[in-house]
Amino acid sequence: MNRAGFYAIEGVDGCGKSGMVGYLVDLLRGRGQEVIATREPGGTPQGEAIRALILSGQDDAWDPHSELLLMTAARVEHVRRVITPALARGAAVVSDRYVGSTIAYQGAGRGMAEDLIRGLHRDVVGDVWPDLTIILDLDPEIGLARSRNRLSASAIDEGRFETLDLAFHRRIRQSFLDQATRDPARHIVVDASGTPDDVRARVASALAGTTGAIA
Amino acid sequence: MNRAGFYAIEGVDGCGKSGMVGYLVDLLRGRGQEVIATREPGGTPQGEAIRALILSGQDDAWDPHSELLLMTAARVEHVRRVITPALARGAAVVSDRYVGSTIAYQGAGRGMAEDLIRGLHRDVVGDVWPDLTIILDLDPEIGLARSRNRLSASAIDEGRFETLDLAFHRRIRQSFLDQATRDPARHIVVDASGTPDDVRARVASALAGTTGAIA
Repeated sequence: MNRAGFYAIEGVDGCGKSGMVGYLVDLLRGRGQEVIATREPGGTPQGEAIRALILSGQDDAWDPHSELLLMTAARVEHVRRVITPALARGAAVVSDRYVGSTIAYQGAGRGMAEDLIRGLHRDVVGDVWPDLTIILDLDPEIGLARSRNRLSASAIDEGRFETLDLAFHRRIRQSFLDQATRDPARHIVVDASGTPDDVRARVASALAGTTGAIA
Repeated sequence: MNRAGFYAIEGVDGCGKSGMVGYLVDLLRGRGQEVIATREPGGTPQGEAIRALILSGQDDAWDPHSELLLMTAARVEHVRRVITPALARGAAVVSDRYVGSTIAYQGAGRGMAEDLIRGLHRDVVGDVWPDLTIILDLDPEIGLARSRNRLSASAIDEGRFETLDLAFHRRIRQSFLDQATRDPARHIVVDASGTPDDVRARVASALAGTTGAIA
């Protein structure tokens, strides 16, 4: 690799993405790298403003088409202002969700055509893909239980997707697995059941088997 | 026409659009029609939230690509929740700006490809076009002077586009004229210089020459 690496962590709600971002950041920093930890939707003031619009409210607060456009607009700002400049100066980037989540949630979940999503990513965002996506694979029934516990303990209203039914979240899980099957060189799938220590050990082991910057 | 009509009012900043919306609404209501007066970006709570994001702040607050996506997301909500239902029940719709402004501002102004803008309108918004667009044509130097007077007298910070240079606004004006030339059956161009009474008289005269619902 001629750059420090762009890593995305993906998976259903409650699969442990944010903890895994912290683990990966520590791992990379431990090797002396500058690391940017970021998230989607968000990662910039513009993206966080869009996040506040889109993750709260009722399920029907946004049409699936505008939801797709808003997610993509947040990603444009994220890529232009944070990800591309960081990679250009040699920093690593670890993002909690990226375009894989749009393919899963707005594509498989909401029924937007995957071609439309990939076309927008290519033509509008600029075709920037992670070097490695780590998919934390979990039964969505377990993930949603974790996620709802966390939301009910928090003052932040970001539960719009968590209110959707289990069938929706099963399509999300399957989409992530399909994305990994389609492009195995740039994805690893890790069983995200069990304790955080269990999952970290599995990720460390999976990374040892890759040829990327971390391994 | 088998429907009451969808009218858009377009033109450079300060050309008198909002006054003309009021005039047209009165004209249509005077004929016993239900009329929806609306605006873009906006027209729905979702669209107004996007408007608040996009019309304030510095020029570089948004990348042109995300600006295009946000404008289009607001339009999706506007068309799905307001315009299409109103037309379906036989009401007329008069909108202060519509997709013509996106072609002008994000296309000619910001340099986004017109094909991309029209592609998004067709594939994501759903190819809904006004029956008649009234372009209030004005030298942008005059329009900006009017517009800045109004903004400085107002507490509302919506001046992000007004701060752009005259060359930008000249491209906007030319784009509106080009849109009318390209599709003359669905556009009228009216000289917007002089007093509001002058301009209303010119619009009334131009409408008398159309075969639309108003004439």
